[in-house]
Amino acid sequence: MPLVRIAVPADRDARYRRDVSDAVHQALVDVIGIPPADRFHIITAHGPEDLIFDPGYLDVARTPGFLAVHITLRRGRTAEKKRALYRAIADNVNAATGTRGEDVMVVLSENDPIDWSFGGGIAQYAPRD
Amino acid sequence: MPLVRIAVPADRDARYRRDVSDAVHQALVDVIGIPPADRFHIITAHGPEDLIFDPGYLDVARTPGFLAVHITLRRGRTAEKKRALYRAIADNVNAATGTRGEDVMVVLSENDPIDWSFGGGIAQYAPRD
Amino acid sequence: MPLVRIAVPADRDARYRRDVSDAVHQALVDVIGIPPADRFHIITAHGPEDLIFDPGYLDVARTPGFLAVHITLRRGRTAEKKRALYRAIADNVNAATGTRGEDVMVVLSENDPIDWSFGGGIAQYAPRD
Repeated sequence: MPLVRIAVPADRDARYRRDVSDAVHQALVDVIGIPPADRFHIITAHGPEDLIFDPGYLDVARTPGFLAVHITLRRGRTAEKKRALYRAIADNVNAATGTRGEDVMVVLSENDPIDWSFGGGIAQYAPRD
Repeated sequence: MPLVRIAVPADRDARYRRDVSDAVHQALVDVIGIPPADRFHIITAHGPEDLIFDPGYLDVARTPGFLAVHITLRRGRTAEKKRALYRAIADNVNAATGTRGEDVMVVLSENDPIDWSFGGGIAQYAPRD
Repeated sequence: MPLVRIAVPADRDARYRRDVSDAVHQALVDVIGIPPADRFHIITAHGPEDLIFDPGYLDVARTPGFLAVHITLRRGRTAEKKRALYRAIADNVNAATGTRGEDVMVVLSENDPIDWSFGGGIAQYAPRD
C-alpha cells in the first residue's frame, strides 16, 4: 500500500537508487508490517538546483547526499511505530549505501483504506460497505 | 480541482500520455462530477528501475505497462463514488490505450476547500469565512 | 517543514527555478512563520504535454507560463493564513520572475507533527509521547 516517492541526487546510478528503494521497503516491512509484496515506489533524480535542502535545520547536518522519502500510506500507525520507521529507514539506507542517516528525510501523508486501488478498477482494501 | 499526478513507463510517447490523461479526466468528470474545465495534470515518465511495482500483490497481475495515478482532491466523496471512479479510470485507460486495467493503480489524497488556489493568489473554493 | 514540490515549464532555466523557489519560501516565512532554515523543495520541469492545465477554469486566465506549487505541511494554519499565503506566493513569484500571478497554482496537503523526520532517524517535531 504505501506509495513511496524517493527523490535522490542526479549523480546516483540505478544500483544506488535500487538499494535505497530496497532499504526503505525493508523498513516498512519490518517495522509497520507492510506485506513484502506490497511495494510501489517512484524514484526521481534531481540536480542540486532542483533538490533544495537546508544544510542545518533542526541541528541535522545535511550534505549533497541528501534524499527525500515521501510515503503515502493508510492512516493509523502509532507515533511509536512511526518513530521506529524513521530510525529503520535511516539505518537501512546507511547500511545499504553509505548515505548518512542525517541525509535521509522522511515525510508521511496518510489517507484511508477506500483511497487505494491496486489495479483492476477495484478498491481492494474497502471493496464494499 | 483535482491535482492529478500520473507516472507512466518511459517508453510511452506523448500521444499515449495524453490518452491516459484524457481517460483519467473523463472518469473524474463522469463519476464524481468534476467540471470539464477543472483539469490539472502532471505526467512523469520513468524507466523500469524507477517505477517499481509488485507483479502480483493482492492477486492483481501487473506487467511493465504499469502506471500510477495519484489524485489530490477535496474531501467528501463517498466510498461508492470512489469505487466507481476506480472502475471508470481502469476501463477508460484500457479503452483509450489498450493498457490492461490491472496495470492501473489509483491512489487518492484528500484535502479541504481552503487548500486550493487556482491562480491569482485567491482561495477560489473558500474565498472568505 | 513544508515539503514543497514545484512543477514548472521545461523551457525555464535554473535561475528561473531558483527564483520561484526563493519566492515561495519567502512567502512561507513571512506569512505562516516557517523558520528561514526550514526549506525543502523539489523542483521538476515538464514539457507542455506533461504539465496540463485548463486555460480558464474559475475565470483565471492561464498561459504556458503556468506552474504548480504543491506544499505538504503540518495541519493547523487558519483559513485566513492560507489565503494570505496564496496571495504572497502569487505576488512574490510575479515580482521575482514576471510570471503572472494567474499562472501560479497552489495546493496544500496537511499532515501531523509525527509525520516528519528531518534526518537522523528522528521525528523532530514529536520526539516522544
